[in-house]
Amino acid sequence: MVTGHVFIATSLDGFVARDDHTLDWLMKQPQPADDDGGYAAHMAEMDGLVMGAGSFRTVLGFGQWPYEKPVVVMSRSLAEADIPEDLRDKVRLSRLSPRDLMQDLFAQGWKRAYVDGGQLVQSFLRDGLIAEMKITLIPILLGSGIRLFGPLEADIDLELIGSRPIGDAMQQMHYGVT
Amino acid sequence: MVTGHVFIATSLDGFVARDDHTLDWLMKQPQPADDDGGYAAHMAEMDGLVMGAGSFRTVLGFGQWPYEKPVVVMSRSLAEADIPEDLRDKVRLSRLSPRDLMQDLFAQGWKRAYVDGGQLVQSFLRDGLIAEMKITLIPILLGSGIRLFGPLEADIDLELIGSRPIGDAMQQMHYGVT
Repeated sequence: MVTGHVFIATSLDGFVARDDHTLDWLMKQPQPADDDGGYAAHMAEMDGLVMGAGSFRTVLGFGQWPYEKPVVVMSRSLAEADIPEDLRDKVRLSRLSPRDLMQDLFAQGWKRAYVDGGQLVQSFLRDGLIAEMKITLIPILLGSGIRLFGPLEADIDLELIGSRPIGDAMQQMHYGVT
Repeated sequence: MVTGHVFIATSLDGFVARDDHTLDWLMKQPQPADDDGGYAAHMAEMDGLVMGAGSFRTVLGFGQWPYEKPVVVMSRSLAEADIPEDLRDKVRLSRLSPRDLMQDLFAQGWKRAYVDGGQLVQSFLRDGLIAEMKITLIPILLGSGIRLFGPLEADIDLELIGSRPIGDAMQQMHYGVT
């Protein structure tokens, strides 16, 4: 089975984006020149990304497509025509459930999937498909927005693997899901 | 003016208690014998505590009253008769607003107040009355409960003062409110 891996930044009050998906509060943080927070190393270990339609639209809004690895967009509303032509070799749509998708990706040779976006992380967590999470805490309270975590049917115990500062202002927490 | 100081534990998804105010998820964590997370040092710096009715009931449920310092319970629903007789020299009720209470306490010689409980922290933050927060992240997701943070009228920028592990499983974050 493919394991899901989360690498994401949240406000201290747990939001990954404002309600309108904007990330100004994140972009305004000073980024240390010599520390990418382990992002490149994380990406090197992944076989590809899985994201929802909301995250896909946010990334398209960046102008430049930032991923080399294959991306699966889980959406029941998007159609092939919604994927820009120059991305069709890198991005594909899926209407499978999280578990079925992970089995499908395993059959294609994937071992580790970078699961991105609040809604998707929530459903993959509920289905027991997340193995570890690197969460960078941004020193700001937003008060509202799109949450990283949501309702659960039962507690999920985590294991603190490590924690380290990124620059002066951010702290990255690394948890395993037990 | 009295400054508000937060010293609290939350689940990674931001809850300070379950909906029924229980803390079993916190109590089950292994507590290191040689590290109180800075609690004694924090208490030594405070002139007293301010809490809501919910936290007051939770603390009463502990059986033994844990505080030496004076406690103000902010409540419009509680009456003097709700305070056990043996606590009446240590606990008093207030119906003042957060700001008026802090001014009142300042007139009584307080400088630093330990502000406890999710709802109270939220209202004191909204009124700009919190100077710093020590938040211990517990490695568990609860999915629901009483939140530490709530809606805001505007972003609140924080300053990361420090972060350190408490035992193997918990991480304490220390923020100033800018």
